[in-house]
Amino acid sequence: MNVAIVGASGAVGQEFLKVLDEQNFPIENLKLFGSHRSKGKDYIFHGKSYTVQELTENSGPEFQDIDFVFTSAGASVSKQYASLITSGGAIMIDNSSAFRMDDDVPLVVPEVNGADCFNAPRNIIANPNCTTIILVVALKPINDLSPIKRVRVATYQAASGAGGAAMDELVEQHRQLSNNETPTVEKFAYQLAYNVIPHIDVFQSNDYTREEMKMFNETRKIMHSPDIRVSATCVRVPVMRSHSEAVWVETESPVSVEAVKEAFSKAHGVKVLDEPLAKRYPMPLELAGKDEVFVGRIRKDLADDNGLNFWLTGDQIKKGAALNAVQIAKYIISHSK
Amino acid sequence: MNVAIVGASGAVGQEFLKVLDEQNFPIENLKLFGSHRSKGKDYIFHGKSYTVQELTENSGPEFQDIDFVFTSAGASVSKQYASLITSGGAIMIDNSSAFRMDDDVPLVVPEVNGADCFNAPRNIIANPNCTTIILVVALKPINDLSPIKRVRVATYQAASGAGGAAMDELVEQHRQLSNNETPTVEKFAYQLAYNVIPHIDVFQSNDYTREEMKMFNETRKIMHSPDIRVSATCVRVPVMRSHSEAVWVETESPVSVEAVKEAFSKAHGVKVLDEPLAKRYPMPLELAGKDEVFVGRIRKDLADDNGLNFWLTGDQIKKGAALNAVQIAKYIISHSK
Repeated sequence: MNVAIVGASGAVGQEFLKVLDEQNFPIENLKLFGSHRSKGKDYIFHGKSYTVQELTENSGPEFQDIDFVFTSAGASVSKQYASLITSGGAIMIDNSSAFRMDDDVPLVVPEVNGADCFNAPRNIIANPNCTTIILVVALKPINDLSPIKRVRVATYQAASGAGGAAMDELVEQHRQLSNNETPTVEKFAYQLAYNVIPHIDVFQSNDYTREEMKMFNETRKIMHSPDIRVSATCVRVPVMRSHSEAVWVETESPVSVEAVKEAFSKAHGVKVLDEPLAKRYPMPLELAGKDEVFVGRIRKDLADDNGLNFWLTGDQIKKGAALNAVQIAKYIISHSK
Repeated sequence: MNVAIVGASGAVGQEFLKVLDEQNFPIENLKLFGSHRSKGKDYIFHGKSYTVQELTENSGPEFQDIDFVFTSAGASVSKQYASLITSGGAIMIDNSSAFRMDDDVPLVVPEVNGADCFNAPRNIIANPNCTTIILVVALKPINDLSPIKRVRVATYQAASGAGGAAMDELVEQHRQLSNNETPTVEKFAYQLAYNVIPHIDVFQSNDYTREEMKMFNETRKIMHSPDIRVSATCVRVPVMRSHSEAVWVETESPVSVEAVKEAFSKAHGVKVLDEPLAKRYPMPLELAGKDEVFVGRIRKDLADDNGLNFWLTGDQIKKGAALNAVQIAKYIISHSK
């Protein structure tokens, strides 16, 4: 396959390179694109050096022989260049929020709705929001037991969700505080070190944030469940990598904890880590860099007889971004013809 | 008033001294007690030095002239010495979990059920669990609008909930990591720096932790609401001081966001900090050391028409422990005779 990466120098772009390697993605040719600032940077892939080209309105010819383009350079770049990128027939797998809710763009998590990949008239497939991806991977097996009606979810989101510079800032804040220096605050609204911030992305008119509304809207689209009601509170925590979520799920009919554990254990992309007495439960520090969504603390919801309560951790750069995008491409390859 | 503090050298014990001062508590005589290890330590209060005495089975005479004894030395010490402490008529305000669920011991948050103080046949009043105190202060004004049926709550609990040594360990972990040293892990099950741990206190047979079941049981007792159903997920986060909670509340009949905001703004012990567009919402780093429970992010629960969703932050050493205990004593003084 001929593959291009747009936004190659970013945190997710770099993860694309890593995941394409880990997943043994069949690559014949690779092209890297970025902003004017990233132009000329070299990256090694499979022992060969690749130079980042600047993406411009004249880049069209570069995409004519490409099969898959992984884009992660923000919504405005995706919008500006989507026609150019797909002009030669390439499939654009877009990590931004630009097209996620467009009716003619499928929003895909392969474990949940892989078949939607083949209904992409614009040759664009959207990669969902990271927090939503790791949630729906865990919701799917429950929904197969009994349709889910309501979801409440409180998130514990790592600095990496805001990019590599935000991760650096958190480390720098801790270094500064350890040396009695004033911490630098640029990437988040407030100091994140020794703090939690209940605010991710911009506020909407209903006083939910855009991040929280992504979880509401994208879950409905991915799961083909137009009535599912997701109420989220999204919170940044001083963790480097991997998001965690405390989840309450209400199903149409009661499902037992045992049935859910069994469904989780058989589900693709899910790993059960639930041995309370052995102190085994998902934690971001331990699970950063892993492919799967880890679920634990699975128990009845004490507030509702049809409810379940559990905890999950997933690496939002991997399954929450680069890995899910590469899995979309792999799904298309393996399910074509 | 003659006052004694048991566990004077601990994080909460030290906070008792600070809060008694801040609250202008009318003190004539003060006695400090502690373990053999703390014996002989001196603390200054109102310009006068007080020496910690060791609490032993022979300490009975020391409590004969005492009006209020604030105890925070763990459940086993409270159980062992309760009869001795109250033998001369002193009221023991106990911060441990020893007596909280005993029928003949009131469990009191003055803003919610202050009158219960006068139904204490054993002269023991229990101070609730910190996470529960800050929750019920916020639940009360909503419950007055329409009875609360269900509560889901995910917590973001600071290191201080595990004591002063745990706070020191978190700072030391960050210092060690900033210097490329291996972090010391003793006070928590896992490294807390750059991590979140969904496990506080020991697991019960229903796979909830004792901390989570305290929120279920103590909320019912404090609010005189035997049917309220609280489902909690309690999580330790790398914050020094002040717990935060993401809360979903379902009421018998719908209550508007406006009505709840107004009720919060009039409620004792609550402060509304809810200006999303100005990025004003409660955060632990900003609010550590404050007396009130701060509420924000108040909005309709997207998952339930009778539901509300909000966020709160409260200092668990202050309102969650020392301040609430001192407020109990003040309530008794001001409402006696």
